[in-house]
Formats: sequence, structure tokens, C-alpha cells
Amino acid sequence: MTPIERAWLDLEAVRARRPLVHAITNYVAMTVSANVLLSLGASPAMVHAGEEVEEFAGIADSLVVNIGTLSTPWIAAMKAAAATARASGKPWVLDPVAAGATRLRTEAATALLALKPSVVRGNAGEILSLAGSSGASRGVDSIAGSDAAIDAALDLARASGAVVAVTGEVDYVTDGVRAAAIRGGHMLMPLSTALGCALSGVVAAFAAVAPAYEGTVSALAVYAAAGRIAGERCRGAGHLPAELCDALLGLDARDLARNASIEEITT
Amino acid sequence: MTPIERAWLDLEAVRARRPLVHAITNYVAMTVSANVLLSLGASPAMVHAGEEVEEFAGIADSLVVNIGTLSTPWIAAMKAAAATARASGKPWVLDPVAAGATRLRTEAATALLALKPSVVRGNAGEILSLAGSSGASRGVDSIAGSDAAIDAALDLARASGAVVAVTGEVDYVTDGVRAAAIRGGHMLMPLSTALGCALSGVVAAFAAVAPAYEGTVSALAVYAAAGRIAGERCRGAGHLPAELCDALLGLDARDLARNASIEEITT
Amino acid sequence: MTPIERAWLDLEAVRARRPLVHAITNYVAMTVSANVLLSLGASPAMVHAGEEVEEFAGIADSLVVNIGTLSTPWIAAMKAAAATARASGKPWVLDPVAAGATRLRTEAATALLALKPSVVRGNAGEILSLAGSSGASRGVDSIAGSDAAIDAALDLARASGAVVAVTGEVDYVTDGVRAAAIRGGHMLMPLSTALGCALSGVVAAFAAVAPAYEGTVSALAVYAAAGRIAGERCRGAGHLPAELCDALLGLDARDLARNASIEEITT
Repeated sequence: MTPIERAWLDLEAVRARRPLVHAITNYVAMTVSANVLLSLGASPAMVHAGEEVEEFAGIADSLVVNIGTLSTPWIAAMKAAAATARASGKPWVLDPVAAGATRLRTEAATALLALKPSVVRGNAGEILSLAGSSGASRGVDSIAGSDAAIDAALDLARASGAVVAVTGEVDYVTDGVRAAAIRGGHMLMPLSTALGCALSGVVAAFAAVAPAYEGTVSALAVYAAAGRIAGERCRGAGHLPAELCDALLGLDARDLARNASIEEITT
Repeated sequence: MTPIERAWLDLEAVRARRPLVHAITNYVAMTVSANVLLSLGASPAMVHAGEEVEEFAGIADSLVVNIGTLSTPWIAAMKAAAATARASGKPWVLDPVAAGATRLRTEAATALLALKPSVVRGNAGEILSLAGSSGASRGVDSIAGSDAAIDAALDLARASGAVVAVTGEVDYVTDGVRAAAIRGGHMLMPLSTALGCALSGVVAAFAAVAPAYEGTVSALAVYAAAGRIAGERCRGAGHLPAELCDALLGLDARDLARNASIEEITT
Repeated sequence: MTPIERAWLDLEAVRARRPLVHAITNYVAMTVSANVLLSLGASPAMVHAGEEVEEFAGIADSLVVNIGTLSTPWIAAMKAAAATARASGKPWVLDPVAAGATRLRTEAATALLALKPSVVRGNAGEILSLAGSSGASRGVDSIAGSDAAIDAALDLARASGAVVAVTGEVDYVTDGVRAAAIRGGHMLMPLSTALGCALSGVVAAFAAVAPAYEGTVSALAVYAAAGRIAGERCRGAGHLPAELCDALLGLDARDLARNASIEEITT
């Protein structure tokens, strides 16, 4: 079975099992994340209150925590949900938005990392920041390319035990031993807000039906294929989220193989 | 006058009077709710701060309270706004999102129900939960069909005094004495987040221009017709919210009669 | 150089310099504001936590503060961010959503005005309210036309030292001495939520590359041109935000000159 064939089977598993994905994500990303997860075949639920996150994390199949629009009460809820997911053996994904840009973000991301996420997904600047490098974040957009963060991703995976995904023009995934490069997507994607955040939710859906490394690779390949198909239907970024949803809903095995590639790379 | 003719007149009244709908709704639903209300012909305002909800509820023509993304300060504001609406004789609509899924939600929905909403609109799982049945909610998506909740809706209407709407593949509305089934809509609608939440806002707009039972029936019929028209213009769920807005803006009496039906049923 | 030629040069400067716009804006507007800024060529960041707004305002090139969905902790963060922007000589834009509708809003807008925004952008009702007139706001939609607020805008500019923009069917900008009327846009725009809020972010992006008065005039002209192009591609308001993004991304000098006009007016 090739990695792309595995990605297809993992997508079929998401569609069949319809995992309940608990999302604590930022205000900008909530709607698009929910729509992307619905078109993927998962069941999203945005639940953030301190009084209910532990109960809900117990019901859900996986969790995604995204620190895009942080505040102190949300950080507490994020930690409680992550600890519950961890304790109940459920996969959870950390999206360290703009880690490195402010002390609050760097500290929150670091504290969440200590709660042992199954997967960390970020752009190059965020992964460089979490791995202890500096100066690569400016706001929420990375100024470094994803290539620049491969070594940092390996270091971070080895130090944290998490699968680490660095997404950008090319995506990289590593568990500290294995690594893969995923190609696909479209140059319009960075012009549509929160598509990276929504991808973290997609990773959480796949992590509910597959092991963390394989599931993350599959998630990124499916998203890269759908992103490319969607981008080719657009003249600008305006309709991209809607086209991405349609591409995810309609994606078949041939679309996937034609619009994304997965290359195993040596670490 | 048939119920569909009445729905058309109620829609014309919304468009003419442009009711100011005060919405305390969840983060996922805010933008699509506002856009749906604008295309319907109403004037939405999303106002949630404890310090201003009572003042604002006094200005507005109707109120919708949706517990989708709860937190303790919001629950307090929801109660204050609902109490003000009630005291000033203005209609208010309760959308008990995911009631039954966590204790916080069930308690918040129950406490709000005690503040005498004019209308409760939910999916089958939520209505079953509020009526005292159990086990039908999983996250925010109902696992029961709307048929399964007809009896619960009747019980809830009789116990609470509210008009109760259970929406799903077929929608049911009852005030405990009368009941109606509304058909229309499109199978893509559950794949687009927050369209149920936006419908609750539409119910609030109609409740500002018509009695609660008749207005709710009319609102559901208008939405069912626009939803069907919109769904037929889509290949996936991505563009559905935009198409729904366009269908609402352009809806005429013939579109309405062709794309939705209202059947009176015996209780 | 005509004002339209200047608007084109200012747009080219935004695209070239990619200003980091710090936005503290309302929940309804966040996603569309971010997408509009990305398609314009700017880099938006939605950051609101009290613990990080000052640090972030120091990193950003400009700031927009929008009081659409207020609450007490957010008001404190808005003030801190505005004070930091002011102290570091960075332009900041105030969008006083629904000022005049509740005491909380009027007080928050007044307190923020005292922190010396570079630009205030609102609809007629909001500007009338801030200038000390009364009774023109009802919810978030103005019941007065923008013409009615020209004198109030002049008074407010003179009293506050800010550039004041009143937007509506025709937009007006004044610094208390100079004034301009900008025409363009499309009648569907008021039917799509938060496009005024997103415009305030666009003003902040232009204020990062041009003086406040000229930058505001340029921003309004660019938005008016893109809005007209977008509106002509739509049959309703549903797809308008997406079309607006596409029009902003693709806008060239000829599109701008054909779809917007700037008229200097005597004060």
C-alpha cells in the first residue's frame, strides 16, 4: 500500500466513522473549521467553557486546541481539555498560532506542549519558535519557508514525543524517526484566513481513525489535494473556503492521487 | 388563506417592517446568522455584554438566545436579556444547542426555558433532552430523526407554554394544541454549519411580526423553500450559506409555494 | 497627481509593504475582515487578550479597534492597545459600532476617542452620536444617510483631531479642514454583514503607508471600486464578501479609476 492509498483508506474511515472532533479554536477559524470538518465527513463541536470542556473531551473522539485568539480563561480550558484527552488516551492536536510573537503565546504553547499532544501542526515560524529558535514569527504569518523548519520539526518531535507537521508550500511531517514531504495545495491558500487552523481540525479527525503519524500524513495529503482542486476553480481567494469544502466532499481516490503526492524522506 | 399564503404575507411583513433582532448567539453562527437575517429583510444586532443586554433587549423587536458556545458570563447575559424581553412583552426564541451533551448545557437550557421563551427551536436530540428524554444528543448533531421527537415536542410545548419547533429532514411545529409539518430544504443543509442557528434567528424575525405559532410555521416554510432553491444551485455545501442568502433575498410567492409545503397534523 | 492616482499608488504601497494590521474587532467581522485584508495585500492579526495587546500593538504597523461585540475585558484591552499605538506613533482607527445605541457603547466610544485615534470611521448614526447629536442609531444600522452627518463629521474632526470618515451611499472624509466625497460601491453592500467593519481594517492598512487623511481617502476609493465590481458580479448579497476579496486582489489602476470617484468638497 502506497502512502496515497493509505490516505484514501483513512479518508474512507473518517467518512464511515464520522469522528466527533472537539475544537477549542480561535474566533476567526471557527466557522470555516466547522464547515471543513463537515464536508470532510467528521462531526465538529466548538466547546470552550471551563465548566464543560473536560466532560466534552470525554465524549469526543479527538481534540484540537488552537491558540489563535487567546485569553486567560481560554488557556485554562485548553489545558483542562488537553489533560482530559491525554488521560483518556484520545488523540489531540496542538496548533500553536503565532507562538513566538508574544510572551503570552509562547508560554501558552509551551505549557500545552507539556501536556503531550499527539500532533503539533504549525507554520515554519511557529515550529521554529516552539523548537527554541527565534525571530521567525511576525504576526500570524510565517516569514520562514517550511523547508527552514525541517530540522526544528525533527528536534521538536524528538524532544516532545509528538508528531510534528510543518505546513507551507511543501508540508513536512515527522515523528522524530520517519519523515514525509507532502505536495499539493494552491498558491491562493495563504490568502484565505484560517485554512491552516482548519487543517489542524482535519488532522484531529484523521488522528481519531489512524495512528498519529500515518493519520497526519493522510490528512495533509487529502487537504493538499482538495486545496489544489479548489484553488484551480477560483480566480481569487474569496471563494476558496467554499470550493475547498466542495472539493473535500467530492474527493475520490483518483482526485487524491492526481492532486497530492507523499514522499518519504530520510531524517 | 392557506398556511403557505400566510407565510408569504408574514415574509412581506418582515421585509416591510425590518424588525431589529437582538441575537445572543454562538461564535460559529454569528456571521451567517447576521447575513441570513439581512437577506431576509431584518436588521440583526449581535450584543452580548452583561452591561448592555437589558438596555438593548428593550430597543429590539425580538430576541434569539442560542447556547452554542457557552460560558458563565454569557449565560448570565442570556438570562438578563430573556427576562427583559419577557417583561416587555417581546417575543424571544431559545435555541438549546447540544442540550443533553453536557451538564452545563442542560442546566443552562433548563434555566432559560424557565424564563418563558415564545419559541424553542432545536433538533430532535435537543428537544428530546429538554423534554426529559435522554441519550439522543452526541455533540451538536442529533442522532435521532425529527419524527422521533414529535411527542416530546408536544409534551415540551404543554409543559413550558412555548411553541416548539423540531427541525430536521421534516420540521414539526406545535403549540401543544395545533401542530404542523413543514417540508422542503435540501440534504446538503446539515453539512453547512450553523444553518439551524441562523434559522432560530429567522424565527425571531417572524415572531416580531406574527403570533408565535403562525410566525414559526411561516419562518420554517420560508427557510425550507430558500434552502431547497439554494441546495439545488450547489454541488457541495461550501456555497450553501451564500446561496441561501441569495434565495432568501429573491424569494417570491411562487418560489415559496413550489419549494415548501405546510401540512396541518392532528395532535 | 489626482486623488485617484494617489489611491492607486497607496494601494501599490500596501501590496508592497504588506503592513501588519492588529485588529481588535467584533466576532461577526473577524473572518471577513481578515480575508479582506489578505486579499488587499496586508497581513491581519486578531489579538485581543489584555496580557498581550500592548506587546502586539508594538509589533504591528497599525491598529483597528472596533466595538461591535463589546464586553468589559475587551474594552480594557482596546484602551491598552490604543494607548500603545498612540505612544509609539502608530496610526490607529476607531470603528464606533452602534455608538449611541446603548450607554456602554457610547461610553466606550467616547473613552476610546479620548485616546486620539488617527481615524474614526462610522456610519452616519455613529458619527452623529459621537459628535453629540442624538437619536440616529437603531441597532447597528444607521437610519440617517451619510449626507446628514457631514457637519457632524467636521465638528468631530475639529474637536478630536482625528480624520473622520462617514460611510454610506456616498462616503465623506474630513480632517476638519479638507473634505472629500467618494462614490462607488454597490447597493448590495449593506446587506452583507461587517463590510463596514472590514473597511475600517482597510483604512488601518492604508494609514500604515500614507498620512491619515490621504490614506483614508485612498482606502475608501479602493473599497468603493472593489465593492462596485463585486456587486455587479452578484445576484444577491450571499457571495459579496467572496467577490469583494477577488475584486480587491485583482484590482488594477484602470478598474479603480472606472469604478470609484473622489471629489474634493469645500468645508
